[in-house]
Amino acid sequence: MSAFADRLFEAADRFGPLCVGIDPHEGRIPALFGGDTPEGVERWGLAMVEAVKGRAGVIKPQSAFFERHGWQGMRALTRILEAAREAGLVVLMDAKRGDIGSTAQGYVSAFLEAGAPFPCDALTINPYMGLDTIEPHVAAAEQYGKGVIVLARTSNPGSADFQSKSLEGAPLFERVVEALAPMVERLKGDCGWSGLMLVTGATGPEEARRLRELAPDALFLVPGYGAQGAGAAEALAGFRQQGNRLVGGVVSASRSVNFPAGSAEADTLDGWRIAVTEAIAAAQADLVAAAGT
Amino acid sequence: MSAFADRLFEAADRFGPLCVGIDPHEGRIPALFGGDTPEGVERWGLAMVEAVKGRAGVIKPQSAFFERHGWQGMRALTRILEAAREAGLVVLMDAKRGDIGSTAQGYVSAFLEAGAPFPCDALTINPYMGLDTIEPHVAAAEQYGKGVIVLARTSNPGSADFQSKSLEGAPLFERVVEALAPMVERLKGDCGWSGLMLVTGATGPEEARRLRELAPDALFLVPGYGAQGAGAAEALAGFRQQGNRLVGGVVSASRSVNFPAGSAEADTLDGWRIAVTEAIAAAQADLVAAAGT
Repeated sequence: MSAFADRLFEAADRFGPLCVGIDPHEGRIPALFGGDTPEGVERWGLAMVEAVKGRAGVIKPQSAFFERHGWQGMRALTRILEAAREAGLVVLMDAKRGDIGSTAQGYVSAFLEAGAPFPCDALTINPYMGLDTIEPHVAAAEQYGKGVIVLARTSNPGSADFQSKSLEGAPLFERVVEALAPMVERLKGDCGWSGLMLVTGATGPEEARRLRELAPDALFLVPGYGAQGAGAAEALAGFRQQGNRLVGGVVSASRSVNFPAGSAEADTLDGWRIAVTEAIAAAQADLVAAAGT
Repeated sequence: MSAFADRLFEAADRFGPLCVGIDPHEGRIPALFGGDTPEGVERWGLAMVEAVKGRAGVIKPQSAFFERHGWQGMRALTRILEAAREAGLVVLMDAKRGDIGSTAQGYVSAFLEAGAPFPCDALTINPYMGLDTIEPHVAAAEQYGKGVIVLARTSNPGSADFQSKSLEGAPLFERVVEALAPMVERLKGDCGWSGLMLVTGATGPEEARRLRELAPDALFLVPGYGAQGAGAAEALAGFRQQGNRLVGGVVSASRSVNFPAGSAEADTLDGWRIAVTEAIAAAQADLVAAAGT
């Protein structure tokens, strides 16, 4: 199996840097699909996978919005993940897990191992508990050709509370990234980039540039573009010029492409599809233009 | 509905400070229950709830070990949580979630709201992303009489990587707890203790004493007792003398009471029950003796 870094880099190279969030927010699933029920979420998610195909290479389902529907929601998530894999999409599972070694191994089995019940290409991880809680994920990523996405500087205002404060002379999020350097090396692909990805919010372009200096080869997952207020140029602040364009990760959009204008009111699947595929294509085009051609 | 803090305090007052982990580790479920399958995990978990009844008042299921069995594992978790509620146990759900506001609301719906599909009394939360990611959980806890358990100083060696390092002059875990002070106030029960609980590992008794100074009224969840190597006296280091005993939270044990000597080899349910109930009773007695009577 190819390294995750190579699969992600190729997907972004082929389609552009957009990563489409799959975030079935409370009360937002159109009646067309069955509304805000596990069945509605499943139908909507499968339709989103279809809508993404050919327009973006990467998706990011948000676990919380499936867990709120209980085990039936997790069954819907499983089926959506399987459909995404069949569609050839790279799947970044946004679950923000993190726990001590033996428990982390449970999350590895759930998401990253061969035959995992929630099959994905990479999993988001919270670094607060320390490197020994990240290690089982990195070891599994090496073994199974997967990726590990560590929260560095998130896109919310609360990132200022601890992440941006000085930990022994540098912001905590920089210390986290410094400590990850050996893991970045271990997950490098043939493309030269690493599948030890860093989350760095589009709302903090300065911080993204600083993280690029600290981790020149780590692929970035950039949330906060679109509904959270940052534009394409800010979202790409931590990317690197390579040839004639900016590369180095993916930029995620969720609400703006999950629930665009016209999608809620659509009374046919075709009407919904037009609204959603146009929003995906527009976001991709916006990012591709900002990245240069 | 009574405040979570009062329910937890009463449970610990009545039975002692033991919190029984429900951690179905890979390959550890006895063949008696069906082995390491979703059905085996469900039967084992229901038997654990029965074994806890009358011997401890609090349990802590670990989400990772259910997620590894996919949605069928999450269905098993749901049934175990429902059985625990019927048994009158206080349930601390160990899922270590944490995300931005709208996503945190998804976890609130999954775990804390009235009618949540994974019903529990409190949920563990990772503070790395900042206070705005904790707030939705605290607001729900106020509304529904639930608790919020924030990771402060965890029991693993990796807690030294970031938590114990100096953030603007004090260890990060102390800064987290300082910032939580208003939330501690908001979740106070009639007992005077707060349902904004802090995780402080038994492996760091000095840190637990320091956290007790910083948050005199926060109930503690203390992991690391038993299989992780800390004794009862260390586990109770952050508790306060009240009358003639130490109070102020619960101490969790998992492997030592989930898989005690004699339980794996038992070829009857009675044999298994004897091994497990004796281990639970012994851990409870050890903690009660250390707390004073």
